[in-house]
Amino acid sequence: MQVELLLERFTHTRRQTEALTAPLSAEDCQLQASPETSPTKWHLAHTSWFFEEFILGPAGVDRVFDATRTMLFNSYYETASTGFWARPARGLLSRPSLAEVMALRERISANVVAFFRESPADAEALRRLEIGIHHEEQHQELILTDILYNLAVNPSEPAYDAASPPPTPPRETSRWQHVSGGRRWLGSEGRAFCFDNETPRHEVLLRDFVIATEPVSNDEFLQFIEDGGYARPELWLSDGWAKAKSEDWRSPLYWRQDARGWRTMSLHGALPLDGVAPARHLSFYEAHAYATWKGARLPTEAEWEAAAPTLRYGEVWEWTQSAYSPYPGFRPPPGALGEYNAKFMCNQIVLRGGSCATPPGHARVTYRNFFPPEARWQFSGARLANDA
Amino acid sequence: MQVELLLERFTHTRRQTEALTAPLSAEDCQLQASPETSPTKWHLAHTSWFFEEFILGPAGVDRVFDATRTMLFNSYYETASTGFWARPARGLLSRPSLAEVMALRERISANVVAFFRESPADAEALRRLEIGIHHEEQHQELILTDILYNLAVNPSEPAYDAASPPPTPPRETSRWQHVSGGRRWLGSEGRAFCFDNETPRHEVLLRDFVIATEPVSNDEFLQFIEDGGYARPELWLSDGWAKAKSEDWRSPLYWRQDARGWRTMSLHGALPLDGVAPARHLSFYEAHAYATWKGARLPTEAEWEAAAPTLRYGEVWEWTQSAYSPYPGFRPPPGALGEYNAKFMCNQIVLRGGSCATPPGHARVTYRNFFPPEARWQFSGARLANDA
Amino acid sequence: MQVELLLERFTHTRRQTEALTAPLSAEDCQLQASPETSPTKWHLAHTSWFFEEFILGPAGVDRVFDATRTMLFNSYYETASTGFWARPARGLLSRPSLAEVMALRERISANVVAFFRESPADAEALRRLEIGIHHEEQHQELILTDILYNLAVNPSEPAYDAASPPPTPPRETSRWQHVSGGRRWLGSEGRAFCFDNETPRHEVLLRDFVIATEPVSNDEFLQFIEDGGYARPELWLSDGWAKAKSEDWRSPLYWRQDARGWRTMSLHGALPLDGVAPARHLSFYEAHAYATWKGARLPTEAEWEAAAPTLRYGEVWEWTQSAYSPYPGFRPPPGALGEYNAKFMCNQIVLRGGSCATPPGHARVTYRNFFPPEARWQFSGARLANDA
Amino acid sequence: MQVELLLERFTHTRRQTEALTAPLSAEDCQLQASPETSPTKWHLAHTSWFFEEFILGPAGVDRVFDATRTMLFNSYYETASTGFWARPARGLLSRPSLAEVMALRERISANVVAFFRESPADAEALRRLEIGIHHEEQHQELILTDILYNLAVNPSEPAYDAASPPPTPPRETSRWQHVSGGRRWLGSEGRAFCFDNETPRHEVLLRDFVIATEPVSNDEFLQFIEDGGYARPELWLSDGWAKAKSEDWRSPLYWRQDARGWRTMSLHGALPLDGVAPARHLSFYEAHAYATWKGARLPTEAEWEAAAPTLRYGEVWEWTQSAYSPYPGFRPPPGALGEYNAKFMCNQIVLRGGSCATPPGHARVTYRNFFPPEARWQFSGARLANDA
Repeated sequence: MQVELLLERFTHTRRQTEALTAPLSAEDCQLQASPETSPTKWHLAHTSWFFEEFILGPAGVDRVFDATRTMLFNSYYETASTGFWARPARGLLSRPSLAEVMALRERISANVVAFFRESPADAEALRRLEIGIHHEEQHQELILTDILYNLAVNPSEPAYDAASPPPTPPRETSRWQHVSGGRRWLGSEGRAFCFDNETPRHEVLLRDFVIATEPVSNDEFLQFIEDGGYARPELWLSDGWAKAKSEDWRSPLYWRQDARGWRTMSLHGALPLDGVAPARHLSFYEAHAYATWKGARLPTEAEWEAAAPTLRYGEVWEWTQSAYSPYPGFRPPPGALGEYNAKFMCNQIVLRGGSCATPPGHARVTYRNFFPPEARWQFSGARLANDA
Repeated sequence: MQVELLLERFTHTRRQTEALTAPLSAEDCQLQASPETSPTKWHLAHTSWFFEEFILGPAGVDRVFDATRTMLFNSYYETASTGFWARPARGLLSRPSLAEVMALRERISANVVAFFRESPADAEALRRLEIGIHHEEQHQELILTDILYNLAVNPSEPAYDAASPPPTPPRETSRWQHVSGGRRWLGSEGRAFCFDNETPRHEVLLRDFVIATEPVSNDEFLQFIEDGGYARPELWLSDGWAKAKSEDWRSPLYWRQDARGWRTMSLHGALPLDGVAPARHLSFYEAHAYATWKGARLPTEAEWEAAAPTLRYGEVWEWTQSAYSPYPGFRPPPGALGEYNAKFMCNQIVLRGGSCATPPGHARVTYRNFFPPEARWQFSGARLANDA
Repeated sequence: MQVELLLERFTHTRRQTEALTAPLSAEDCQLQASPETSPTKWHLAHTSWFFEEFILGPAGVDRVFDATRTMLFNSYYETASTGFWARPARGLLSRPSLAEVMALRERISANVVAFFRESPADAEALRRLEIGIHHEEQHQELILTDILYNLAVNPSEPAYDAASPPPTPPRETSRWQHVSGGRRWLGSEGRAFCFDNETPRHEVLLRDFVIATEPVSNDEFLQFIEDGGYARPELWLSDGWAKAKSEDWRSPLYWRQDARGWRTMSLHGALPLDGVAPARHLSFYEAHAYATWKGARLPTEAEWEAAAPTLRYGEVWEWTQSAYSPYPGFRPPPGALGEYNAKFMCNQIVLRGGSCATPPGHARVTYRNFFPPEARWQFSGARLANDA
Repeated sequence: MQVELLLERFTHTRRQTEALTAPLSAEDCQLQASPETSPTKWHLAHTSWFFEEFILGPAGVDRVFDATRTMLFNSYYETASTGFWARPARGLLSRPSLAEVMALRERISANVVAFFRESPADAEALRRLEIGIHHEEQHQELILTDILYNLAVNPSEPAYDAASPPPTPPRETSRWQHVSGGRRWLGSEGRAFCFDNETPRHEVLLRDFVIATEPVSNDEFLQFIEDGGYARPELWLSDGWAKAKSEDWRSPLYWRQDARGWRTMSLHGALPLDGVAPARHLSFYEAHAYATWKGARLPTEAEWEAAAPTLRYGEVWEWTQSAYSPYPGFRPPPGALGEYNAKFMCNQIVLRGGSCATPPGHARVTYRNFFPPEARWQFSGARLANDA
């Protein structure tokens, strides 16, 4: 029965989120080292607020979040029941405490289960429950990307997980895979769950192209660095060059060079550069400059989706060359949930694939991730393509 | 003979640029009221530098610009013969004087003519001459957009041209024009002149759509304002709303409301709002919010190009909903001229059409203008579209 | 014996600091809501670092702080053994944890006691021990001023101490006290402990003046507000007016007006305005504007010190009109401790007196506190003076 | 007769201002390269506005400046007849043109003379006329300091005056001059003209001190540079060090080092460093660091004034160590003229002496110039002092 399956997935997802925070102290969970990276505690509260705001509240269930907390943990929904706390100030909240937030979570979880036990046939609520689960999975990944950033500013280089990482599996040499063009379908058929931005499914015209069978590796990106890639403006987009100069970029985020050689900060602490692993924490600008340096380019998202069935993927989010824009015929849903994806369709670039931090089963071939071109704190890398 | 025709157009274009500056004093020509708007004097010098940098210099003709001036009047070519002066500081140059710049122009013009009289068969030089002419036409429009901005900050509201503007021609009521979808060609065939970003010509798949026969008028936009359009976040893209709030936008740029009602600052000074005229000086964000308010959307650039033959246009640059990105198979030309268009293919939106400030014969159906989504000082407006 | 007395005071001071933090959680102790306000945890660590840097380290005692922590908890000593962590980033450190910092404190405290038991006659070390004790007392006050600020940004208005505050004692009406001028001694004789900036004692010439017997009260300051004080530029210093406008000041820091009337945020949470209590959390600019509005002025620090013996004081730090500058003949001590006070003798204003947050016995008549004129998060108020 | 003498000085001063601008084009006169440096044209208009605002307007003489221009050329008088144009935007005004401003000047000058011919006994107006003359003299110096800055940003290094500068006169070796302390009078007796901030004359107590007979020379300052003075934080005030690092100061303003050695930009263009000449264009921070490096200090303004009769001076404005604050008993005059000096008595340092750019007869022993400690575009240098 669908309700039961959903509630099972709901409960699993809630537990999974909490398990992710197990290695962290209350102090760790409060860190916000940049306006983009939210505290773990905020993620824990916000994902609970979501269920109350969009399911329990409209259904008249008594609120667990008081008015102030409803405001504090709304992320960006202008048309929700309250305004929202400024994003850069999320790390300035010691109250509610982590323990209180955990208790709030428990109560919300219980309320959700109780509500659906009583109203198992509320189709709109069920639809929102499924969105809420996927929403929480997105925040599971953000918990990891954000805590990595938030810990990495500490010069003592704390590890989120002090255990050694699993060894990078052996990796085949990348080669060009030919993909035939023509009319191709793009977007979700809508039978399984998808976000609104993956619809409507529509046809596009593609030309023949080639795409690399492997994402760019650290060793490959190191060659770009050693060839002066960060000092050659002809390789860069104009805005990318300005950003790289103003912030003095000389390597991807988290790369550090000292007498020991190159190291990278990771969830397992600072480790020697793993040359075989996919290059991570690239901005779109760096991915684009690298591709130009190789005489290649990034794939469009349509090319990526067309090629995806033949590729192994999921190690890093892969920057495409496509700006994030609505599919033909796209209409956001009415109400505040219409703000979920649609209002960000400007100044963002689509990433495809998934990463080591993406919850299993979360992403799919039609999934459209998006970030501004300068973002580097995600597990973002590059896969090359070229005209056939 | 092609050389003679080109030189005639060259000479005409040069004279035309100078004629545009006739109403301005040397003081006017030095104004730079924002980092985006260059002084008239700078435009006069830069368009001359272009011919020396890309034609006369490589051909070994003695330089008219010394090393310092070559640097001062390079706009943004990282791989040109010198670096370049910071854009926001262009208004800080009283030397060379306007008179000196005019003399430099004369010498460059003479050198160009002399060079082609001697070397009429240098195909690459001829190609660059044609680019240089179109480049100078682009700066003719920028001279007007920039001087409007630069004069408009003065509270005495000086007119570029004190004569009354011609009356707005009578205008038909806009209606929805149906356009059938299917495979459509996009881009230039390349027989007549075009910029590199208009190529390669390629096919795209379109769905049926409707497009307005007229651009949005001032009266129509005023209804948006009066309906609280600038205070309703649900109508806006997220970045647009943030911009509108941080800069306290309450109307398009140059609109002013006082006891006399709405007035707009124009090249003819401050005038009562002309309700019938197309709304101008909209950012993409405002155009997008307006379309959302109307239950419509902006056209993609492919839709616009498909519909263009059936439309009257050219009053305002029309924001499309398309991010500025390379056409499939696009490759920028080698060398510094490859920086002309390609490196800006990020964070910009395509505008189509042309404006009252565009030199006659400059624009064309395949022409891709582009500006950041917050830009408002261009003669930019909106035309609505919708799914069929 | 002096060593034993000092060690007793040392131990008392250390315990007192720790007691101040008892009401706070580890999360509270990590807050930094502005670049000026440090986290409680940082204060706890820094005051320990001080003893290691200036006493134990030079004496060869094994370091408790490793190299990274030595850098993290140096405040601003350019010539100390390491550089220092950027002040605005002090709140970004979840490691070391509060528990670790408390353990570090214990070890440092034990090491200090053990060292002086072994070397009771090291005069320079004893001198530094005394400075270190007074230094830690200064940070006791900062712990309170900073946590008030850091909690006050939270819209749930958390109290540092949930108990009700003691009632404000009844207060006499302020009157003008006449003080005769002539030659007066300023500064410390140096028999009891003082900071370097209180020396050398020297004579100044004063004119007759009057000084208020009471500091400005909340009720009095409210009249300034109600008379439009924040909207009348003629009352303000130029820089103060610019600051007040750019930050939209309409009342002292922590004053909030709503349907319930005026409330002020305090260590006991948000409370109704106590009209009788001294006005607190004034910047120098506000104190100066208030004085101008009253047709009076602030006292100079020499006037204040001359009048002090006849006044009750210690409720608020009182802004003088004196810029913080060296006394005639002042020489900072050699070495990094010379940076303690001297390098701040520019762009700061002297405050005299003491506050409810000052540890008992810490301040004295010659004590020179100093903050920039825009600072408002201290317990800072105003006492009026005037020419006789 | 006093009126005639004043009118003669008025006319002379007006002509002198205009003569200073003779070497400049209208384009030069519009430059504003920093918020602190006003365009020459603005100075020309503002000094005329002053007479209309404070003498002619109150007397009912028809206004020459319309409402907009009255606003544009008010500098900072909050309580004057209109608001004022933002200081950083003074360079954005091409209208009124330089020619129009010159015509406005003529009319104002004529109106002033006519008014006093008719009302020779208006004592308040005469007092204001004298202030206006001295005010205009101050702006004569600012015209030179500002145009030097405004031209110096141009990489072609234009000279205000292309003639070679007069050779620096031979200079004696500086030695320490002993000055006895005791009670000394400070401030103006008020018989001859002075600004309000020079009053009231009052006694201070000084200790014996020594003062250098010569200001610091370029050669001497060069030794500071070569000894690493800009890289040694222990020599600097805290705010000074922060400023020097954030703006990458490595020498005084206008010093440039290249293959030819050290050159300095001056009103005569870029010249080889003149080792014998007084070091100029120092901030207070640099003067203070230099003094610390020499084991000396800057004099207080009281010391400076006490020593002045025995010193040759007037080559550079000499930074004292005194913050700019009111003399005991100081009261600003009522009305907008009270804003002239009083509201700046915060965050500024007093300079004494005069410079090569000061109009002859303008400065005096009691004259208090003041600028923020980071200001470097004035002709500001240093003279050392020390305790006896």
